[in-house]
Amino acid sequence: MGYAPVTPAIIRELKEILGDKNVLVDEEKIEAYSHDETNEEEYGHMPEVVVTPETAEQTAAVVKLANREVIPVTPRGAGSGLSGGAIPIFGGILLSVEKMNKILEVDFDNMVVTAETGVVTNDIISMVKEKNLFYAGYPMSVQTCYLGGNIAENAGGGKAVKYGVTGRYIQGMEVVTPKGDIVSLGGKLAKDVSGYDLKQLLIGSEGTLGIVTKAIVKLSGLPTASAVLLVLYETARQAIDSVPVIISNGIVPTSIEFMDKLSVQTSCQYLNETLPYENCGAMLVIEVDGSSAEQVESDMIAIGDLCMENAAQEVYIAEDRNAVERIWNVRRNIAEAFKVYSPIQSLEDIVVPTAAIPDIIPELDRISEKYSMKIPCYGHAGDGNLHATLVKDPEMSMEEWHKAEPEALRDLYSVTQKLGGKISGEHGIGIKRRDYLEQLIDPVELELMKGIKKAWDPNNIMNPGKIFN
Amino acid sequence: MGYAPVTPAIIRELKEILGDKNVLVDEEKIEAYSHDETNEEEYGHMPEVVVTPETAEQTAAVVKLANREVIPVTPRGAGSGLSGGAIPIFGGILLSVEKMNKILEVDFDNMVVTAETGVVTNDIISMVKEKNLFYAGYPMSVQTCYLGGNIAENAGGGKAVKYGVTGRYIQGMEVVTPKGDIVSLGGKLAKDVSGYDLKQLLIGSEGTLGIVTKAIVKLSGLPTASAVLLVLYETARQAIDSVPVIISNGIVPTSIEFMDKLSVQTSCQYLNETLPYENCGAMLVIEVDGSSAEQVESDMIAIGDLCMENAAQEVYIAEDRNAVERIWNVRRNIAEAFKVYSPIQSLEDIVVPTAAIPDIIPELDRISEKYSMKIPCYGHAGDGNLHATLVKDPEMSMEEWHKAEPEALRDLYSVTQKLGGKISGEHGIGIKRRDYLEQLIDPVELELMKGIKKAWDPNNIMNPGKIFN
Repeated sequence: MGYAPVTPAIIRELKEILGDKNVLVDEEKIEAYSHDETNEEEYGHMPEVVVTPETAEQTAAVVKLANREVIPVTPRGAGSGLSGGAIPIFGGILLSVEKMNKILEVDFDNMVVTAETGVVTNDIISMVKEKNLFYAGYPMSVQTCYLGGNIAENAGGGKAVKYGVTGRYIQGMEVVTPKGDIVSLGGKLAKDVSGYDLKQLLIGSEGTLGIVTKAIVKLSGLPTASAVLLVLYETARQAIDSVPVIISNGIVPTSIEFMDKLSVQTSCQYLNETLPYENCGAMLVIEVDGSSAEQVESDMIAIGDLCMENAAQEVYIAEDRNAVERIWNVRRNIAEAFKVYSPIQSLEDIVVPTAAIPDIIPELDRISEKYSMKIPCYGHAGDGNLHATLVKDPEMSMEEWHKAEPEALRDLYSVTQKLGGKISGEHGIGIKRRDYLEQLIDPVELELMKGIKKAWDPNNIMNPGKIFN
Repeated sequence: MGYAPVTPAIIRELKEILGDKNVLVDEEKIEAYSHDETNEEEYGHMPEVVVTPETAEQTAAVVKLANREVIPVTPRGAGSGLSGGAIPIFGGILLSVEKMNKILEVDFDNMVVTAETGVVTNDIISMVKEKNLFYAGYPMSVQTCYLGGNIAENAGGGKAVKYGVTGRYIQGMEVVTPKGDIVSLGGKLAKDVSGYDLKQLLIGSEGTLGIVTKAIVKLSGLPTASAVLLVLYETARQAIDSVPVIISNGIVPTSIEFMDKLSVQTSCQYLNETLPYENCGAMLVIEVDGSSAEQVESDMIAIGDLCMENAAQEVYIAEDRNAVERIWNVRRNIAEAFKVYSPIQSLEDIVVPTAAIPDIIPELDRISEKYSMKIPCYGHAGDGNLHATLVKDPEMSMEEWHKAEPEALRDLYSVTQKLGGKISGEHGIGIKRRDYLEQLIDPVELELMKGIKKAWDPNNIMNPGKIFN
């Protein structure tokens, strides 16, 4: 690929910049940085060196060196990504933001938090909650993922139907550019049209356009009331069919999460949890929140009624924190559970217009049958975003799987595109979906993306090989 | 500037593409396209030809021709801009989207409108209102401005405190690139991380990166209840001081608009309207809305009480549509009224963190005194966005004004930047603030912007000379 190797001289220079403790070369220590939550055998790759800068200045010095020497730099958050975005596929320098993990300021007057990007997302949520404030970002990995990863992937999650995705809440950021400059974008500002909105471009760019070292995150008032409905349906189709009905009915729920039976079952087994899934084929988890208990109750009843009018078998209401947390815990752990019970799998992330999601279910059935694989499905149905998961049948040989998986994916993505959808709603393209994206995307759009990349990163050192070639 | 002139041969080719009726060359007819709502003498410039394509294909053909011949193309919406963004400062082709003015689809299931960008923003609002749906964009020029202009400037307006600015609602767009290709970005999708978010980059890029010909606009449920508070204060400082108190108190109003006495007075005179401004030095217009009359009433009372505790003289409540519309009409017409009564002026658009807006008022007083000019002030205080307006004293000679105005602006912008603000919150940089931006911005950020512009528009034909040189 024309990249220079990380020589002993480079290691020495890195140690001068960062101190010995922030430069890891032992194979044992750096192995953990060679993969994320995608399949390690398929996508894993060892870095030549791992660095853990403590400041933006150190980060910039590392990138300047890498740009000078033409060594790839792969930025990494918590490693909880699902598209291989943080895997150093060309070796080189793996730059982990784990030591830039301070919440620098909670500014109550402006209702913003300034934090380094190695902060765990849930730490922000917990810290501001005490002050009756609310950060609306809620990826399913909220307890482990970093703010930096959320920004890199423009993470969605469990509250996006009502609150939108990460990008809506990032008012400012500090970025190390691919040339190693430090630049501050935006500010504590509700709006700003003073030139191009570069921070929105960086959000979701998967670390290919720079490393975000700090962010200014907008807070809201903490919703004081909430409730969760657990709605059971006989079939997945029935559950999904009711989603656009709810969405277009005027009440905006916080979330509408979908889980088919296999997904609930697998997560419940993994957690040793009991949700009443036995008699249902699928369920929706619908949360409503707000500032008044009466409003939440009336919204909850209206949505419950709507579900019962649209083929629901039963509606359970969870109002106390404990019951609510149990349900969300099952939802949050599906991906992890599938990894344990079905290690050979492909977790997908398609997104379609909400009105089109009923059309997806029969297509999943068709693909499942055609390629002889199970496709359990769950996800953020209220956003049209479904995590269909292609699972290898134990009977299928690895050789057959490696042949069938890409064909099934191409089929799935092509159907998604026909329905007006895209191949990733929140997990990103990374390395996992790169070749598929390049096949599906309008070449003009791809050229525009590559134009930006080339202008900002002429040596192609910043997370190369991700999103596109 | 190295641009080719629009020759008779080019005119012939344009007529072949567009038909005779869509190619205007008569000086009388094209004069109206030589200026926007900025001062005509200072910023106006005649185009060589005006074209009014009816389709994206015609638009693309014009841009292809312009790119081939290296002729500048200046896209134009309704011409209601306040930064000279639509002025063809190098002559060339003025491309007005006025004939691409159809609302193509209201998709109730997905709650989106697909519209051409020559549609008047209010037409979208009115059309979907009948169906109990709501488009939250509400620039003060809502009754005349185009969706395309709103996208080009990432327009804010009167509902942004609660609903955010235009960019939040644009889910997809059709764009003609500076090379004359047509590309569709996004879709009817609540979220999408399939590559860089180019549509967010285009939003607010002031027509320098392409011409948006169609957009998919997200709708919400129509708020069924609302009320407007007119809150009077003795001084501007007192009115502004209460804004961060309201903002950080938990209730999210739809808007907090600020008007000092001169602004209200001027607009009231212009409209022959009577608001009770005589005894006050400034007022806030605070709107609250929601889906329940009880909630709106309780929010309204809470905010009213808060204002009274924070130095308000009086709080008037307008609940019926007519009274609400009268108040908003006064607010919407301030800029127009000032143009009539003080034609020599500079309408500004600074934005600061909301907690910093109290610090702006004494700075405006200082600048007013230092440069011997009145600076009436109004704007979207709830967003930290103030339209301070430098007004020439009748005693001041034009020569003195031309000397004092840029100095006063530099002073104002520099103070704004010191307070963590930016020079434009919603009007854009255009030609009016370009040189100031270039002086104030971090050179690294400017280089990143220019890198994108150069990659996408190597011949610099797409609205050249705007935002930066």
